[in-house]
Amino acid sequence: MTSYTVAELLTQEPKLQPIEVKGWVRTFRAKRFIALNDGSTLKNIQCVVDFENTDEILLKRITTGAAVHIKGELVESQGKGQNVEITVTEIDILGDSDPETYPIQPKKHSFEFLRDNAHLRTRTNTFSAIMRLRSSLSFAIHKYFNENGFYYMHTPIITGSDAEGAGEMFRVTNLDDKNPPLNDQGDVDYKEDFFGRETNLTVSGQLEAETYAMSLGKVYTFGPTFRAENSNTSRHLAEFWMIEPEVAFMDLDGNMDLAEDFMKAVLGHVLENNMDDLEFLEKRLQDEEKTKPQAERSPMSLIEKLKFVVDNNFKRVSYTEAIDILRNSKPNKKKKFNYIIEEWGADLQSEHERYLVEKHFKCPVILFDYPADIKAFYMRLNDDGKTVRAMDILFPGIGEIVGGAQREERLEVLKEKMSALDIDEKELWWYLDLRKYGTAVHSGFGLGFERLVMFATGMTNIRDVIPFPRTPQNAEF
Amino acid sequence: MTSYTVAELLTQEPKLQPIEVKGWVRTFRAKRFIALNDGSTLKNIQCVVDFENTDEILLKRITTGAAVHIKGELVESQGKGQNVEITVTEIDILGDSDPETYPIQPKKHSFEFLRDNAHLRTRTNTFSAIMRLRSSLSFAIHKYFNENGFYYMHTPIITGSDAEGAGEMFRVTNLDDKNPPLNDQGDVDYKEDFFGRETNLTVSGQLEAETYAMSLGKVYTFGPTFRAENSNTSRHLAEFWMIEPEVAFMDLDGNMDLAEDFMKAVLGHVLENNMDDLEFLEKRLQDEEKTKPQAERSPMSLIEKLKFVVDNNFKRVSYTEAIDILRNSKPNKKKKFNYIIEEWGADLQSEHERYLVEKHFKCPVILFDYPADIKAFYMRLNDDGKTVRAMDILFPGIGEIVGGAQREERLEVLKEKMSALDIDEKELWWYLDLRKYGTAVHSGFGLGFERLVMFATGMTNIRDVIPFPRTPQNAEF
Repeated sequence: MTSYTVAELLTQEPKLQPIEVKGWVRTFRAKRFIALNDGSTLKNIQCVVDFENTDEILLKRITTGAAVHIKGELVESQGKGQNVEITVTEIDILGDSDPETYPIQPKKHSFEFLRDNAHLRTRTNTFSAIMRLRSSLSFAIHKYFNENGFYYMHTPIITGSDAEGAGEMFRVTNLDDKNPPLNDQGDVDYKEDFFGRETNLTVSGQLEAETYAMSLGKVYTFGPTFRAENSNTSRHLAEFWMIEPEVAFMDLDGNMDLAEDFMKAVLGHVLENNMDDLEFLEKRLQDEEKTKPQAERSPMSLIEKLKFVVDNNFKRVSYTEAIDILRNSKPNKKKKFNYIIEEWGADLQSEHERYLVEKHFKCPVILFDYPADIKAFYMRLNDDGKTVRAMDILFPGIGEIVGGAQREERLEVLKEKMSALDIDEKELWWYLDLRKYGTAVHSGFGLGFERLVMFATGMTNIRDVIPFPRTPQNAEF
Repeated sequence: MTSYTVAELLTQEPKLQPIEVKGWVRTFRAKRFIALNDGSTLKNIQCVVDFENTDEILLKRITTGAAVHIKGELVESQGKGQNVEITVTEIDILGDSDPETYPIQPKKHSFEFLRDNAHLRTRTNTFSAIMRLRSSLSFAIHKYFNENGFYYMHTPIITGSDAEGAGEMFRVTNLDDKNPPLNDQGDVDYKEDFFGRETNLTVSGQLEAETYAMSLGKVYTFGPTFRAENSNTSRHLAEFWMIEPEVAFMDLDGNMDLAEDFMKAVLGHVLENNMDDLEFLEKRLQDEEKTKPQAERSPMSLIEKLKFVVDNNFKRVSYTEAIDILRNSKPNKKKKFNYIIEEWGADLQSEHERYLVEKHFKCPVILFDYPADIKAFYMRLNDDGKTVRAMDILFPGIGEIVGGAQREERLEVLKEKMSALDIDEKELWWYLDLRKYGTAVHSGFGLGFERLVMFATGMTNIRDVIPFPRTPQNAEF
């Protein structure tokens, strides 16, 4: 007897051969129809039980969530919605699921409830679809870079360097928690700690990735990054995954080309490979939107939105142009923005980014050449002395999804910038070495992976697109 | 003029077309021959400079490590060792490299020296080859699982659960380092910390991966894991990457089949795709071994060793059989082992594992059915009541490279085991839920990624196969 997954069975021609399959009961109705799922696909396979010739006690154990081993024949289905079904000849209960206490019932659960049961939530259609898409997007990323001559590198998670300034950091320590050793100045003596210095969780692998770009040419990271920021929003996590390519001899134009091509490729991958899951999530989103007033509904369906990104050029607009557009926009003049744009140099807020993308250009937008003052120290200064070769990609519904830059390759300019910001050269001696020995134009960007998963799944809370979210006051599981 | 990578140029037919290429000077000899590398391949391309018609000041700036932009013609090479070379028509120095201070000279550097210069060490052949192989192995892993119906999942890095007991953990905290808040009992009050509880860096994603296996069927993790163990050896890191597949409805036999097939596939991938780098590292190893006495030299070359693993079945041996073999072995009888094997139940040391693999069986070995007492609480108890369905894969030169098990799927047995080991059920309520609701046989294993990279590159110090190693007293870069 051959063992199959549900995904395999659903693509087989109906034959009378004996088959077996293992999975979990999603529903059991009329003492007759088991909807069986094993995670291999969103779809269930219908298993038809001959209830008149099945022990009553066994029938009672066929409950939502139970693990079962089914033997039978694959036949053409008489019912709607499927081509094949299984005529069950034998059923074994591998693991019961008490319907009185099992949290995942065949009904609609709130996302909040499912977050509290994150260990079981992939037993629902919505979360199994999200996590299959997350996996598919991950693979698409590795595939894209592999096909384009990039090397994957693992940048360190624990870091002694805190110069990047991308945000608040978590301390990693092994010292006695209550009575840490103190030095002569009365401060905690990190020389006594595991690494002999104060260490934190990384906020970005970029600076280390630059060291490898300047020898291996094209590299990328894909790893966890951390922010100890006490912001309890639907867009922030304390622990999230980031993709950071870095390329030698590539300028900002090349960087924009790369980012656009990359985003189209990975979204194209899921359109090609995950249509079942996308269609399910699109339907879910449509049902959700029906409860909203017409004006708040999305003009495009989930799949239309993905196709739109894949098929259309991203609009490239300088920061200066964007400020002009925003200054003259209706919501700015009518003071509808929370932050009114008054002059060049203003930092753009999410409301401005979304206006540009959703109302003005109606397509993904790449903003570039930002004021130096609102961007990081390592970005390449333009000849105007006031803007840097930075770029952000803005997506509908999400806002900023990619942030990148050409890096400052000139040793003296970089040193001046660091000095102005009080960044100790001794901290970043190795980063400066890249500018001392064989420096060259190079660029890269960072993509917050969960933002991408949100975009591809239509989910609006970032806690729902990562298996076990880490947020203030929450590190369960 | 078309821009190429060195890898692309080396496979082009010689033509007189104008081409350009950017890279770093590896060597410059006789004022004429630049060996140019850009990381796209181990190999350099020879660029021939017409020194008689080139400015003397420019010639002086062509030094090891300098970044250059070369224009010229690709022609058939007159020299040995290459088919094509570039006749340089124009050369620009993008970034100088002062030969007086540049650390990476065209000579042999010790691995210790290069570890101190880990930001520059991929500018050597050895480390560029290692890191290209590391990248290729990573991709092979994702490719294997993707092709075999597994979903990639990101298990949490920061964890509130410390029940796994795989080793000492690092604390992650945001509290004041010198004067942390105390509770009524006078202990540090972790309720005040970022996550509202004490949190650590993960030692394994297995328990969380089980939650996904029990809904999605086949999953795997590939992420960083941590040990705060003060062991300064050539085999241990405080931060390393681990691969952990977990599969529902799979028993230990299936687990051994999967692990063997997986190891063969990923090593087969580099044999197919990375022969240049493997040949270089094989040669390096042979040169190194020449300095050793004959008896200590490896009987197989690097590539022979990889092929041997790919082409031969792993020997499967029960722990009980292994103990018999070891007890009756020469080194045991002659008391040559540091730890003499006297009776069943002994924990195997590295010397025993290597004896079994390298002297007795002379092939990779899978040991299975270990004494329950020396293995983790979650492993499936056999009917004999004293062994568990664990397995370890032992590789020549490396020892244990994979550790796995069938998991205990029976709620009551698992609870008894936890109680005997004083593991609080409340800590692992979610893990127990998997046994309450739809439990089933399931299995998985863990592979230390750096051990695999060591095996595939022939490197003997784990610090040399990860970009920026984290070890006691060291978190530089």
